[in-house]
Amino acid sequence: MRVSGDVKKVVLAYSGGLDTSIILKWLQTTYGCEVVAFTADLGQGEELEPARKKAELLGCREIFVEDLREEFVRDFVFPMMRANALYEGVYLLGTSIARPLIAKRQIEIARATGADAVAHGATGKGNDQVRFELSYYALEPEIRVIAPWREWTFKSRTDLIDFAEKNQIPVAKDKRGEAPFSVDANLLHSSSEGKVLEDPAEEPPAYVFQRTLSPEEAPDQATVIEIGFEHGDAVSIDGVRLSPATLLAKLNELGKANGIGRLDLVENRFVGMKSRGVYETPGGTILHVAHRAMESITLDRGAAHLKDELMPRYAELIYNGFWFSPEREMLQALIDKSQGAVTGGVRLKLYKGNVIVIGRESPNSLYSTKIVTFEDDAGAYDQKDAQGFIKLNALRLRLLAARNKGLDR
Amino acid sequence: MRVSGDVKKVVLAYSGGLDTSIILKWLQTTYGCEVVAFTADLGQGEELEPARKKAELLGCREIFVEDLREEFVRDFVFPMMRANALYEGVYLLGTSIARPLIAKRQIEIARATGADAVAHGATGKGNDQVRFELSYYALEPEIRVIAPWREWTFKSRTDLIDFAEKNQIPVAKDKRGEAPFSVDANLLHSSSEGKVLEDPAEEPPAYVFQRTLSPEEAPDQATVIEIGFEHGDAVSIDGVRLSPATLLAKLNELGKANGIGRLDLVENRFVGMKSRGVYETPGGTILHVAHRAMESITLDRGAAHLKDELMPRYAELIYNGFWFSPEREMLQALIDKSQGAVTGGVRLKLYKGNVIVIGRESPNSLYSTKIVTFEDDAGAYDQKDAQGFIKLNALRLRLLAARNKGLDR
Amino acid sequence: MRVSGDVKKVVLAYSGGLDTSIILKWLQTTYGCEVVAFTADLGQGEELEPARKKAELLGCREIFVEDLREEFVRDFVFPMMRANALYEGVYLLGTSIARPLIAKRQIEIARATGADAVAHGATGKGNDQVRFELSYYALEPEIRVIAPWREWTFKSRTDLIDFAEKNQIPVAKDKRGEAPFSVDANLLHSSSEGKVLEDPAEEPPAYVFQRTLSPEEAPDQATVIEIGFEHGDAVSIDGVRLSPATLLAKLNELGKANGIGRLDLVENRFVGMKSRGVYETPGGTILHVAHRAMESITLDRGAAHLKDELMPRYAELIYNGFWFSPEREMLQALIDKSQGAVTGGVRLKLYKGNVIVIGRESPNSLYSTKIVTFEDDAGAYDQKDAQGFIKLNALRLRLLAARNKGLDR
Amino acid sequence: MRVSGDVKKVVLAYSGGLDTSIILKWLQTTYGCEVVAFTADLGQGEELEPARKKAELLGCREIFVEDLREEFVRDFVFPMMRANALYEGVYLLGTSIARPLIAKRQIEIARATGADAVAHGATGKGNDQVRFELSYYALEPEIRVIAPWREWTFKSRTDLIDFAEKNQIPVAKDKRGEAPFSVDANLLHSSSEGKVLEDPAEEPPAYVFQRTLSPEEAPDQATVIEIGFEHGDAVSIDGVRLSPATLLAKLNELGKANGIGRLDLVENRFVGMKSRGVYETPGGTILHVAHRAMESITLDRGAAHLKDELMPRYAELIYNGFWFSPEREMLQALIDKSQGAVTGGVRLKLYKGNVIVIGRESPNSLYSTKIVTFEDDAGAYDQKDAQGFIKLNALRLRLLAARNKGLDR
Repeated sequence: MRVSGDVKKVVLAYSGGLDTSIILKWLQTTYGCEVVAFTADLGQGEELEPARKKAELLGCREIFVEDLREEFVRDFVFPMMRANALYEGVYLLGTSIARPLIAKRQIEIARATGADAVAHGATGKGNDQVRFELSYYALEPEIRVIAPWREWTFKSRTDLIDFAEKNQIPVAKDKRGEAPFSVDANLLHSSSEGKVLEDPAEEPPAYVFQRTLSPEEAPDQATVIEIGFEHGDAVSIDGVRLSPATLLAKLNELGKANGIGRLDLVENRFVGMKSRGVYETPGGTILHVAHRAMESITLDRGAAHLKDELMPRYAELIYNGFWFSPEREMLQALIDKSQGAVTGGVRLKLYKGNVIVIGRESPNSLYSTKIVTFEDDAGAYDQKDAQGFIKLNALRLRLLAARNKGLDR
Repeated sequence: MRVSGDVKKVVLAYSGGLDTSIILKWLQTTYGCEVVAFTADLGQGEELEPARKKAELLGCREIFVEDLREEFVRDFVFPMMRANALYEGVYLLGTSIARPLIAKRQIEIARATGADAVAHGATGKGNDQVRFELSYYALEPEIRVIAPWREWTFKSRTDLIDFAEKNQIPVAKDKRGEAPFSVDANLLHSSSEGKVLEDPAEEPPAYVFQRTLSPEEAPDQATVIEIGFEHGDAVSIDGVRLSPATLLAKLNELGKANGIGRLDLVENRFVGMKSRGVYETPGGTILHVAHRAMESITLDRGAAHLKDELMPRYAELIYNGFWFSPEREMLQALIDKSQGAVTGGVRLKLYKGNVIVIGRESPNSLYSTKIVTFEDDAGAYDQKDAQGFIKLNALRLRLLAARNKGLDR
Repeated sequence: MRVSGDVKKVVLAYSGGLDTSIILKWLQTTYGCEVVAFTADLGQGEELEPARKKAELLGCREIFVEDLREEFVRDFVFPMMRANALYEGVYLLGTSIARPLIAKRQIEIARATGADAVAHGATGKGNDQVRFELSYYALEPEIRVIAPWREWTFKSRTDLIDFAEKNQIPVAKDKRGEAPFSVDANLLHSSSEGKVLEDPAEEPPAYVFQRTLSPEEAPDQATVIEIGFEHGDAVSIDGVRLSPATLLAKLNELGKANGIGRLDLVENRFVGMKSRGVYETPGGTILHVAHRAMESITLDRGAAHLKDELMPRYAELIYNGFWFSPEREMLQALIDKSQGAVTGGVRLKLYKGNVIVIGRESPNSLYSTKIVTFEDDAGAYDQKDAQGFIKLNALRLRLLAARNKGLDR
Repeated sequence: MRVSGDVKKVVLAYSGGLDTSIILKWLQTTYGCEVVAFTADLGQGEELEPARKKAELLGCREIFVEDLREEFVRDFVFPMMRANALYEGVYLLGTSIARPLIAKRQIEIARATGADAVAHGATGKGNDQVRFELSYYALEPEIRVIAPWREWTFKSRTDLIDFAEKNQIPVAKDKRGEAPFSVDANLLHSSSEGKVLEDPAEEPPAYVFQRTLSPEEAPDQATVIEIGFEHGDAVSIDGVRLSPATLLAKLNELGKANGIGRLDLVENRFVGMKSRGVYETPGGTILHVAHRAMESITLDRGAAHLKDELMPRYAELIYNGFWFSPEREMLQALIDKSQGAVTGGVRLKLYKGNVIVIGRESPNSLYSTKIVTFEDDAGAYDQKDAQGFIKLNALRLRLLAARNKGLDR
């Protein structure tokens, strides 16, 4: 297992923005290597063709611009949604879940183009560097990884801008100063961090939110929708069958309009520090609530509680960048095993930030009115059974109490 | 460990309502025993003196009417809040947490009055019978437990009303028919179940909600509050120090007015069936969000994640009635150990069903702007460290990948 | 979901012994029903043809005598071994794992013969009744279950013998009194319980052990063997490929001769009491040690630790009778997912009760001498990486300490 | 939180051996700093006064030689034993548990002597560097940590020996070549690693074992002992009360003589590689078995199973070096909470590698012969209760089966 020191060709996760353009040029000048630019459409809501042109201008001969939205939702977002994954009780992992897909494509492109290295634009303080690099290594153990932000000697924004200008990288006027916060976006969420958000005692300024209306701005009238599920995955809205990415996009619209999915969080990064993030996950928030409701009538208690107990671990693995790890895959096998009958429909009321379940139905429902009813159940459930159930559940506690009281036992 | 067959005196958890009045009389006539009536104020919002009078009329010579609100919140609700307990991801356990306290007082009263039995008014299908009885047995292993709903031979509401009338129990007109749903209430929550709620595909009718305005009815203006915490427990609102029960009552008002804390849930009962409940937990919902936010800056990641992983188990124990069990107490010891520094203040915006964190501050904050900053950190964090961190976290994944690819390793 | 009250035909788990013969007759006389006798060879080491004859004599018209040894080991013992399952840290679950298979065949036979009920010979205090009945219900929710030991009115051994004699059931002389202990046996283990073993302060008398030599009696010379594994299952001994049951039988011989696999345990039954059991699991003990050793070089740490953390839960499920439950199946999916590369050979020294690993080899080994070596590793591992690894793992602890000391942070 | 670059005085964990003598001198020459030598007696079985003299010769003015055996066993080994901690199912963590104590004393000595740095002799590939350094940082977040093995430029054993000779460090003849394996020892165990042990397919040569007889060499006669426990800790052997360290030393003698406590293991290091270790833990192995047996009659099932489920996590924390972490302390609080009644005596037979439980007794026993007995229990347990217990445990499985079969439910 050897990693070569020399770099001949590197596949860069390239957004087309100023920072990754600087990285692109820096890789060329520092390593004297060829750079393959890879730009993925994960639903971040930007035109990608300009990125292609910019990469051409910067001298790339191999450029990959790919629409990965369906793969992203189908193979990454949906499996995670099956787990009801929440990091630290609340965060829907919108950034975390995108990194392994980008990394995977970089590795595939490296193989296809004969590149011997990969590079990304994540800084040395965050989680994303970890997520990218663990994914690279897990897929291609001998790959050379370049993390420019950890390597270069630029000390300030000014240094970067200087480098850009010296290298004919166009710098938009509004990029000269430092951005008031930093953003990541994809079909599942937008995240904002840094600068104006650095004091967790201060409310985020309104201009930070880009993806959702505030609850206050949302309409006074609720929107009612029905999401259809098959085997744990959402497949339709209001009876209209939609592909994974189309469905999530539609939920994003609905969530945005109704002020749904904002989160202001102080979280624990894998690298050991606390950070403050503002997240907007409109469609994902709706999906999360709907999936739990769908499971509530179709999953057995044993299955549901086991999932709940393992969920924090699963979410932590994704957050920390271990998507491509045996333990994540083992947990996924466990989760997927439970989803066969998670089929049916959930009706929701979306209203000013609230996602309210107002109905769930399934051909596979385990809810039995006959048994639960307050009315005569015609013998479906024998209340006498409860006595034995309680008596034997109590037995060990009674022995313990007798012991503690010094009673005969 | 013997439980006597004969019953001389029984302590009944007596609400003063029709059902427990029938039970009171039924105990007297069936067992020929004396009944000690015990009525607790847990904040259910009813006058209790009428219960005392009714018990007198029904022939009780020993009557206990007690205000347990402070004990309830301080020793039961708050310890549970320290755990961020949610059953099945969403339910704040409002009914579950009240039962052990009632049971404990029943046992104490049995000891004080020389009673040899205890009785409750829970039915044979629900969780409450389990919660009462496991608590009784855990505290007094030789106590005789009577569960009238499982024992008597009444077949219908009509039978019960007949018995009431034959025994001079006053029956209010509106109690003759069956209630459209069944209610339990205390300072933490109100729950509604049964009848009109039995179809989980149907939205609960508006009249089911008794404790909260709907988000739609709530004011168009947000309310901003600050909750102060000390060692994991809420101690003040907007700088005003309040006792536990007073604080929760105040949060209930705030939550009610802002449409906060409604939950419509299909849950898994310990006795093996699914049931549908509608819960209103206005103050508890605010408290839950605030406590998590307080922990977000004061708890270390290791502590926080361990708590998150054990929370579902802890919540399940409370839901299933195992408050007085060694394992709940062990988990509580673990949780309480973590709360020493959970002190500070959380600012919240309450708006039409939303509880939005807009600030958290603590003298014990672990959030370090110096380290997390996007700006120059003056060496507080060495980005180069991340490389080694990632390399060693990746090592096992690389060895695995090398193995799976048949590479030398 | 209805269970009929009437019983027309019942499938009895019939051993051919006195107790189940009495049950057979009792079922016929009490329910006036036909009894289908089902006798399984799970490797208990008894002739089964006598059971067939006895059943015929007792009037059974449908008799099933089946050799289930291969299915038992392949589909029950081996999957459990993949999990390294130990109940309460030490018990290899030899009785627990056999019950679901017997129950499954009873249900299949009930379907084939049109029987409407099943019955077993387990008493009302033990775990086996739970294991049988949970399995029955999980496979056939409307089946009628008869548990004679909980139903009949016999008060003593004498009553049973009287019933036997009145019903022409032959009673061997040595069965007239009560056995000094009770035994269950199959290919995986023998268990002994009760009577002479009831005082956990007393050493079991030597005559209790039937399946193994004592370490003292075992030869002074060690036996060295090599077990071959494929995908987590043992497939060969000393290079000779063996079927699952044949392999386990061979290991039983080896274990017996070398005094391996005795366990004297006080355990916690699912029904709430502690009991004392003496177990002999000669081959299973060897297999358990070998499987762990095989995993030690072929499983990644993440996979291995996740398995270790979930193992107690998995073992508890099997012990409690939840083999046929969604949660056991989900855990099995997780476990099986990890076993693909658990292939290779483990060399063991068997000596007077000890199972000593003396070598493990695998084409899939993750052990890398190159990396671990104390000698020059030619750059395979960069010791400098450890610094960053430690620094970032320490970061949260340092922030915590700084906080606790009131230092600037 | 600042770590100074300059080093004025460093506290070195000094064994008196060649390697740490070289480190001592290297620190003096490289950093031009004063070195405080700290040598701890943790029961490694070596004279410590020679270390003091050597440190004096090497120019140390502050030398600490301390007997920490009682603290080691009482505050580190015993708390860990309460948890029944085993890493990867088998390893008793003998090295891991010693590091935090050494680190803690180094920090205390640094404070007392005004030192600004600490140093250790662990290499860059192992776990010990992590354990030392995480402990240092957790106790003193601004301490400067020096890890000579990761810093210096010596390439080979020869380089080291050259440096020693140039610096008047005496080099014993047998230390000139490389040792055939590397050893760590303390009162709990001895570990051996490296060189002759690097091939996990090869049995360890007999000369590796230094602390125990082999089972073959052990006497043909068993030794029977009784260990007394109070609140989870061993306090006596055969009725003779002993201090923690004295008791463990006595068990070591007994274990050694009877061939107990050898382990040959391939384990997963925290730094990401697999390594092979040979461990001898004679007394600890006996203690582990005895403690489990003591718990088997004094711990409730709920407590015992919760401990079992959390044990792998607890063991992993200790192995990885997180003794001084909130999560280990939280788990310890949970564990300690369970040990109040773990009092009594366990009788063991020690025989050629085997530790066989032959009796357990406790004034706090939860084992109830009355309830478990096969004989008439005079009504202590009502077998009829089992039916209700099973029926309600089965209910969800029946509903599931009915659903899966398309039956009415």
